[in-house]
Amino acid sequence: MVDKKISSAVVKRLPRYYRYLSELLEKGIDRISSQELSRKMNVTASQIRQDFNNFGGFGQQGYGYHVSFLHDEIGKILGLEHNYNVIIIGAGNLGQALANYGGFSARGFRISGIFDTDPDVVGKRIHDIEVMSVHVLEDFVKTNEVDIAALTLPKDQASRIACRLAELSVEAFWNFAPTDLNLPSNTVVENVHLEESLMRLSYKLSEKQSTREKEEKG
Amino acid sequence: MVDKKISSAVVKRLPRYYRYLSELLEKGIDRISSQELSRKMNVTASQIRQDFNNFGGFGQQGYGYHVSFLHDEIGKILGLEHNYNVIIIGAGNLGQALANYGGFSARGFRISGIFDTDPDVVGKRIHDIEVMSVHVLEDFVKTNEVDIAALTLPKDQASRIACRLAELSVEAFWNFAPTDLNLPSNTVVENVHLEESLMRLSYKLSEKQSTREKEEKG
Repeated sequence: MVDKKISSAVVKRLPRYYRYLSELLEKGIDRISSQELSRKMNVTASQIRQDFNNFGGFGQQGYGYHVSFLHDEIGKILGLEHNYNVIIIGAGNLGQALANYGGFSARGFRISGIFDTDPDVVGKRIHDIEVMSVHVLEDFVKTNEVDIAALTLPKDQASRIACRLAELSVEAFWNFAPTDLNLPSNTVVENVHLEESLMRLSYKLSEKQSTREKEEKG
Repeated sequence: MVDKKISSAVVKRLPRYYRYLSELLEKGIDRISSQELSRKMNVTASQIRQDFNNFGGFGQQGYGYHVSFLHDEIGKILGLEHNYNVIIIGAGNLGQALANYGGFSARGFRISGIFDTDPDVVGKRIHDIEVMSVHVLEDFVKTNEVDIAALTLPKDQASRIACRLAELSVEAFWNFAPTDLNLPSNTVVENVHLEESLMRLSYKLSEKQSTREKEEKG
């Protein structure tokens, strides 16, 4: 594990590097130059070299970078050498999408429980896991190790349940509910606010259209 | 419409402001001070004042901000006064989640078509829309106005279909496939890379755990 502090700007870029390096490995490619990677990723080669230097990923003249070494180092920095137990709260379409996505388990994220409030959904099987009632959620968290809670439930329930889980010492929340959780500072939260994402797209589209209109008016 | 160029840092924060202002309006609150909004949003009041000044959102001493004015101005900047036609390509769990999410239509994003490759899924109704075969996608795009294509399909198909849609002059892509699309520069793309989001959460969790371990040893 690298001990040196890596800047948050670099950390932000690591998941994307990891994704490209994973793809190279899948294709059986174990060396790549910064120029080639630069072309693929649409990032300057000097940016890539600077970023990789942060954690001892030094390319060799005439050889390039050792893909599996870089892949493993970045994986360690991202904490992917752990196996995390994930519970999903909310077994609607979004919760099911997460449960059924094979890519997560391949990265060491194991879905250990799925919960829902709807009696019609409780008892159904999703990706080989029986959906449990939220009534047994507290007991489940007390008796099983839970690292990450994915919140795929309506916003009015998300905050309350997240607070309760934080009290029961769940430390990480992957929040899909369109609200901010306001949890204690000993927790970590990653938000996926789809509505905000769609607004950013709307902004880009509207900006592009108004630029074009101005050009046409000339 | 505000004509002044707003910095990308401010634009990035606008969707979150818009969400809070929408919630205030839903609760019937039409004035708020920067201090109150600051407390709610966990952003400094001076940041809020600076941001709002950008588009003429000047608070008044002793009155505060006019919520519906700010809400509408930010909505205009984000292009939300348009009505956008959205097609969803990939009617799996994620595509269904998008189609069923009421919040989008409330913001003027109208789902006008859902497409899938799977013959078992084609013909089913999702949120009152019949899923069509991807074989009729090109015809649909030629005969209907499509502003945004949401890509909720596997990555090996996403790039190819996005390129084809861009040729047919679809301008905006909301990409959920774990790949970069590499589309012509006259298109706009907003990526939602769930795997990368989960890696960022993993990083935060792992960093927190290693800080704690050091403190315990210390």
